[in-house]
Amino acid sequence: MLSPLAKKRLTYEPPIPKILKDLSKVTFRHEHAMAPHADIAALFPQTISGEVASAEVTETQKLGPLKIGVVFSGGPASGGHNVIAGLFDALQKLANGSTLIGFQDGPQGIIDGEFVVITAKLLENYRNQGGFDLLGSGRVKIETDVQLQSSMAQMKKIGLDGLVIIGGDDSNTNAAVLAEYFAKHECKTRVIGVPKTIDGDLQNPYVEISFGFDTATKTYSELIGNIARDALSSKKYYHFIRLMGRTASHIALECALSTHPNLVLISEEKKSLSAITKEIVDLVKERAAEGKHYGVILVPEGLIESMPDINLNMSDDIARHLGVERDAHGNVNVSAIETEKFLIYNVKKELGEKFAALSHFFGYEGRCGLPTNFDANYCYVLGMAAALLVARGETSKMAFVGHLSHPPEKWTVGGVSLTALMHLEERKGKRIPVIAKALVDLHGKAYREMQAQRAQWRLHDDYLSPGPIQFV
Amino acid sequence: MLSPLAKKRLTYEPPIPKILKDLSKVTFRHEHAMAPHADIAALFPQTISGEVASAEVTETQKLGPLKIGVVFSGGPASGGHNVIAGLFDALQKLANGSTLIGFQDGPQGIIDGEFVVITAKLLENYRNQGGFDLLGSGRVKIETDVQLQSSMAQMKKIGLDGLVIIGGDDSNTNAAVLAEYFAKHECKTRVIGVPKTIDGDLQNPYVEISFGFDTATKTYSELIGNIARDALSSKKYYHFIRLMGRTASHIALECALSTHPNLVLISEEKKSLSAITKEIVDLVKERAAEGKHYGVILVPEGLIESMPDINLNMSDDIARHLGVERDAHGNVNVSAIETEKFLIYNVKKELGEKFAALSHFFGYEGRCGLPTNFDANYCYVLGMAAALLVARGETSKMAFVGHLSHPPEKWTVGGVSLTALMHLEERKGKRIPVIAKALVDLHGKAYREMQAQRAQWRLHDDYLSPGPIQFV
Repeated sequence: MLSPLAKKRLTYEPPIPKILKDLSKVTFRHEHAMAPHADIAALFPQTISGEVASAEVTETQKLGPLKIGVVFSGGPASGGHNVIAGLFDALQKLANGSTLIGFQDGPQGIIDGEFVVITAKLLENYRNQGGFDLLGSGRVKIETDVQLQSSMAQMKKIGLDGLVIIGGDDSNTNAAVLAEYFAKHECKTRVIGVPKTIDGDLQNPYVEISFGFDTATKTYSELIGNIARDALSSKKYYHFIRLMGRTASHIALECALSTHPNLVLISEEKKSLSAITKEIVDLVKERAAEGKHYGVILVPEGLIESMPDINLNMSDDIARHLGVERDAHGNVNVSAIETEKFLIYNVKKELGEKFAALSHFFGYEGRCGLPTNFDANYCYVLGMAAALLVARGETSKMAFVGHLSHPPEKWTVGGVSLTALMHLEERKGKRIPVIAKALVDLHGKAYREMQAQRAQWRLHDDYLSPGPIQFV
Repeated sequence: MLSPLAKKRLTYEPPIPKILKDLSKVTFRHEHAMAPHADIAALFPQTISGEVASAEVTETQKLGPLKIGVVFSGGPASGGHNVIAGLFDALQKLANGSTLIGFQDGPQGIIDGEFVVITAKLLENYRNQGGFDLLGSGRVKIETDVQLQSSMAQMKKIGLDGLVIIGGDDSNTNAAVLAEYFAKHECKTRVIGVPKTIDGDLQNPYVEISFGFDTATKTYSELIGNIARDALSSKKYYHFIRLMGRTASHIALECALSTHPNLVLISEEKKSLSAITKEIVDLVKERAAEGKHYGVILVPEGLIESMPDINLNMSDDIARHLGVERDAHGNVNVSAIETEKFLIYNVKKELGEKFAALSHFFGYEGRCGLPTNFDANYCYVLGMAAALLVARGETSKMAFVGHLSHPPEKWTVGGVSLTALMHLEERKGKRIPVIAKALVDLHGKAYREMQAQRAQWRLHDDYLSPGPIQFV
């Protein structure tokens, strides 16, 4: 059942870039654009490449019917259903009689061969809708020999020409592993990744932003703007607002630029707990001197893990206060700490219990909203790009859409080699190949923009209320 | 500084009911519609009345310039600035050369005579905007002799013909107290209340709904719909969503009708903790039998206080788990318990720690959003109604707008006697006159509509995503 607005959104038609008007004429031009790491080359002998494939209009290329599989991997992000719609529509146009199947509940569906055939009828109620519920999603990684063998057996059984994995950094790493495995075992299935994550930490010179970030940050910014206006109306509380973003603080930074809180903390600054506590205490005192006993502070959820001085052997008193369990070694699980409450606790130690603070956490409410026009358009084109990449024989590539700051008509599409994006990283004591997360660049544009306004935001209440996402 | 959408909203012009097209011709017809309580009559000898005043178009009534004061009282609700805009615009049209002043930071501003003169220029950036920040708000009640005397002295000093109090049940009770006091002491200031509260618990035969409820419930419903879609996509968690509403569950009920959660708890049902725990455990088990290990449950924040079997002497273990402090008598402060976490705790006692649940609380993010068109229109007309009531010599009345389910052109306006809405209630051991909160009517339309769908919502995932508020 659909709400009136959701129903209305079904009829929205994403604009198509000029370059994709006649898909039958689109091919890819290859450039050696990046130098893969040597240690990655050793691990991916079949698929190692520094290539970028860019779509260009050439001559009509006839194609027989294709069979493509698609899967959602990891947490949902708005626009996922439009990736599938773009894939489906492009496939129909590219190669008549083609089939798109969707694996269910994430990569486990690949291993188990659980899938549905995606039809125009099935898609009918999912165009421009949030969520991953058409197929479900899951966090399983296809890693072990048994998992890899089962997956390949399914590819062969179904006869898939391509597998499109819609996921974040880990899922795209997994896409590279599968591509290498299939190539090594002469399985024809090509593997294409689609960059998804609300966290915005999947970026590279070709992928300007992952999908879902726009809808998520606009959803959170609406709420932050409302709370800031409440702070200014009620003049009673400091609102500590935790936002998703375990490793990178892109969400907090983007929301700060949209709402102008009094303070935004950025994990990448790697400030100590004592420095952050002092920063907040100073802010509160300076504002109090101006008669302001309220404020808004944005906190990325990963902040605590970025603090060089955080004490894992924190006292029983603190651990209990924060409701945190200890592991067998007596250490607290830092990731279970509600960072904003931890900060309030520390600020109260300095300022006393009279310091009035409220805590909020925004995460899940931003992952499945109706996609903004940007995410709806972007995802539809990402889906088209993925279909084209498979159709033209590409594998181990991440689909991308370029020139995103221009109108969709001018967007470009292509695929960047997954292995070129990888390096070795230590995880759980092992060095494994991964696509590195893109962190907030402290010399980048967004951060510098925030820095330039930071002093203004501290004392002046320069709050912005972006309001709810509008579709027209 | 205003966001692009906020700026755009400045230019929105609320439609004006036909009856208010020429304010100079609008007068009030009086009817004895309600029978006040005898014990209230004894306390309000000057202002006791069962009257309802309904606007009607008669002949042009000439008026000299008026001086009116306005104040925000209690928590913010979307549309407050439009009440002031309606007041201001009506006053200019009604009586040229009139003055509107705004008392700052709530009723304390009345006592202290802290105010600003409201000009077209000052209002310019507040039309159709959320929040109460034009004036600020506060929770002080004008109760003691000293407070009442100071307030009256300010009325006389400024020479106010009328005082408009924008607030909830307690603030409207306070309006009645002031009206009586002023009348008794021959102070000319008439007092008019405007029904505000996001909780929706200020309703009576004339006031169909308080302002702010529409924007708040639509803001929460957007988020609940997003979370439901996330539940359905990720299939991992039960989301327990606590919503504002200490006494009444109107918000939870309205949001349920907009989003179709698996379960909505209603404080007015007065179920015991054990019954509610069993209801949730049964739901989880029944859904598990269908392979569904996720769900959405709405919890009004006042639920715990409505449970007949809640044990205020709860064990140390529970109190510590919930992070609740004890008072000097060793009792826990029930209102400090996060109700949704308490329910999760109790369900886990039955189902074990493997029961995966996440908790959310939506409150502050819904009080200061850009008002929906409904709240923008409704508040503007409420402001006009309040100006008219003062202008035509009414006092101790709550402004109301009727026929709200019709287009604004057909709305009616009037004022209902505040004393007719009052009764004696025991608070802190004393029987005092108050306007009773309107609770969810278990025989009412909304509740019956929910009841009719309840069984369907439990097992079928009939979730609706209302999406963000649209202004066009």
